[in-house]
Amino acid sequence: MSTPLSVDIPTAMTISAQGGIDGHSRRYEKVLGDMSGVYRDEAAWQAAVTERGDSELVYWVDDQRYQEGPGALIVGTSTLLPGCYGDEFALTRGHLHAIADRAELYHCLSGHGVMLLETVDGQSAAIELTPGKAVNVPGHWIHRSVNVGDEPFVTLFCYAADAGQNYDIIANAGGMKNLVVVDGDGWALTPNPDHTGYSA
Amino acid sequence: MSTPLSVDIPTAMTISAQGGIDGHSRRYEKVLGDMSGVYRDEAAWQAAVTERGDSELVYWVDDQRYQEGPGALIVGTSTLLPGCYGDEFALTRGHLHAIADRAELYHCLSGHGVMLLETVDGQSAAIELTPGKAVNVPGHWIHRSVNVGDEPFVTLFCYAADAGQNYDIIANAGGMKNLVVVDGDGWALTPNPDHTGYSA
Repeated sequence: MSTPLSVDIPTAMTISAQGGIDGHSRRYEKVLGDMSGVYRDEAAWQAAVTERGDSELVYWVDDQRYQEGPGALIVGTSTLLPGCYGDEFALTRGHLHAIADRAELYHCLSGHGVMLLETVDGQSAAIELTPGKAVNVPGHWIHRSVNVGDEPFVTLFCYAADAGQNYDIIANAGGMKNLVVVDGDGWALTPNPDHTGYSA
Repeated sequence: MSTPLSVDIPTAMTISAQGGIDGHSRRYEKVLGDMSGVYRDEAAWQAAVTERGDSELVYWVDDQRYQEGPGALIVGTSTLLPGCYGDEFALTRGHLHAIADRAELYHCLSGHGVMLLETVDGQSAAIELTPGKAVNVPGHWIHRSVNVGDEPFVTLFCYAADAGQNYDIIANAGGMKNLVVVDGDGWALTPNPDHTGYSA
């Protein structure tokens, strides 16, 4: 048994329940203008852009990644701001891992959200997340975060560094099969009439 | 692109900051009698067994595991009770992953601990953990949790389901290279004179 010539050095992180990691190696931000085509009610999204500007922050991600090789893990926080576009709650673009069998942990640190999950062959699930709740998303599930509350929805995530993301799978299917919509004071799933099925 | 004939179903977990997961698939407990040979001061450990009994709980782990295949993640909590054996703080057995390049996230939920880390070729690190602090242990690092506080030290962990554990590597080396010992009101690292080096 031997150690490789070069190993990664363990480093501390400080994870904020309000989102963000001291010790992150990367931060990216998504603004309203990046969300073209993501919400079913394009007119509602366009009205929001007109009112709030296309550079308004809608979600941001901090992560710590030290290498992309097999065995490494990426750890981060996702902070999704609240909002509605038509009757659809604010959401992330969503993805399937490029290496589809790679799982991902999401552990809610604050806020109130839903993890919306679908398989290419039409299975569907939705897991409600509040602080302390978590879901270990198995491989082969397309997944997206939805904020159904009125505060930022913050999750700690962890996934294999080699997993990669396929974002096009949702766009190419006319969106996910289900929408997460306003339902009284809560949320509900409703079928997305524009969904064409995921392409094989 | 296709979904396998059988995919794992996403299930919710509730993670307690005091340790434990509602929705765990496995729980294991370590008692004082299991810790024979782990502490350098064997007499101090033996005295504790005599005083408190060999069946006294010293740490326990809940985890959620749904398959062992590549890509899957195991998520759990580790709850390490406080204590001292001679001047050594309470600790877990520690391990290197059987597939040594597999990383592991530890996110402190409560208490005050140290992640003690060593490589087979003699590198060493110690990362102090309090609530909100985390360490993404890279591959090739032998690691163990140490409770340097007086409350249970609870971490959320996440690692690849295929990683496995090599526990013997520490026992076969006369313990880890460093000990985490009482130092006034705090803790310090001190060399372990019994450490023989890790066998190649």
